[in-house]
Amino acid sequence: MAKTVAEYLQPVHAFLACETPDAWIAFAAREDQLPALLADHANCEMKAAQTAQALMWRYGTPRTHSAVDTSGSQASMLHKLSRLAREELRHFEQVLKIMKKLSLPYLAVPASRYATGMIAAAEKHDPQALVDKLIIGAFIEARSCERFAKLAPHLPPLVADFYISLLKSESRHFSDYLALAETFAGTNIEARVEYFRQVEASLVLSEDAEFRFHSGTPVEAA
Amino acid sequence: MAKTVAEYLQPVHAFLACETPDAWIAFAAREDQLPALLADHANCEMKAAQTAQALMWRYGTPRTHSAVDTSGSQASMLHKLSRLAREELRHFEQVLKIMKKLSLPYLAVPASRYATGMIAAAEKHDPQALVDKLIIGAFIEARSCERFAKLAPHLPPLVADFYISLLKSESRHFSDYLALAETFAGTNIEARVEYFRQVEASLVLSEDAEFRFHSGTPVEAA
Repeated sequence: MAKTVAEYLQPVHAFLACETPDAWIAFAAREDQLPALLADHANCEMKAAQTAQALMWRYGTPRTHSAVDTSGSQASMLHKLSRLAREELRHFEQVLKIMKKLSLPYLAVPASRYATGMIAAAEKHDPQALVDKLIIGAFIEARSCERFAKLAPHLPPLVADFYISLLKSESRHFSDYLALAETFAGTNIEARVEYFRQVEASLVLSEDAEFRFHSGTPVEAA
Repeated sequence: MAKTVAEYLQPVHAFLACETPDAWIAFAAREDQLPALLADHANCEMKAAQTAQALMWRYGTPRTHSAVDTSGSQASMLHKLSRLAREELRHFEQVLKIMKKLSLPYLAVPASRYATGMIAAAEKHDPQALVDKLIIGAFIEARSCERFAKLAPHLPPLVADFYISLLKSESRHFSDYLALAETFAGTNIEARVEYFRQVEASLVLSEDAEFRFHSGTPVEAA
């Protein structure tokens, strides 16, 4: 039987330290913010695809003087991240189509502080850098999933339906990233996950002057 | 009615200045070269996806102080290149699966001189740089298509069938790139196409010490 929205969300909520503040939802649901919301969303999908491919290229493909076992975990990571990148690109195309249907322009919207804030908290050297990037990937996907679900009821039907349809793949991306982090850490990662859980929650709960898909609590509503 | 292989190949052959030399085919069909052929092919698919996305990011997404008309040619380029990138990633996954089925490792294979040689012949400044990159994209896709078809009869059935299945999408990628080049040039591009046609043919026909999917005539066979 097909999973319900609540079943997709259960592990996502268990993973995140906090829900998105109601003030962010109220701001994001404003009709005048829809073009910025969709433009930033489109950018996020494209960047998520690029990040997955950067991980493939850096950690998955064979390095000089070594080959990749095509039955091993490195090849399996390549396969998973490639599928994930394809899905993000398809979502990008879908956002573009929705902007067109709603006769909205694709606005120029610089990136939020969210992903940079997470990356700044990561270790710079491997092997920990890879594990951290995968954990961060899990948080970004989980937060996206949570926001799609919480925001959907407040949006025009066309966008709302689309956001609900994204839950399924975003929740799978979240567990894929987490499983990859566990595989490549080769040890228990719970303490590291907890560390990023707090970093992530503080980016979501603290005031943020800019409105984006992953921005913090809007200043004017705080 | 479905197009035949010959119908897919006709515009490709008309576009390229020369066929792949028989000496390259003979070398590429050697059983001991199969791991290198597939590894380089996998890398090419991944890089083709990355190139398409670099073009999206650089030329398709909105720049500061401007927005993209979601009904215009820039949005249509974004959509086409995103689909193309998804297809290249799917091909990457398929090559990986074939290597696994044949119990072959994914070897470390540095890039050939081919794409770098083409890019070196391109204009460095926009707007010509974009048009040149799109023309180069058309040549790379056309050459891939021609090689898949000419090489297939000499390969193990599993790889041969896969290469024939790629013809359809690679020939569409070729025409997509060419159409985009025409759109963004806004003028007749035949002279520029002819210039790259000669550059491409000389990379294919001249001697090449390294064997790759897009390498020149093998030295030892020359």
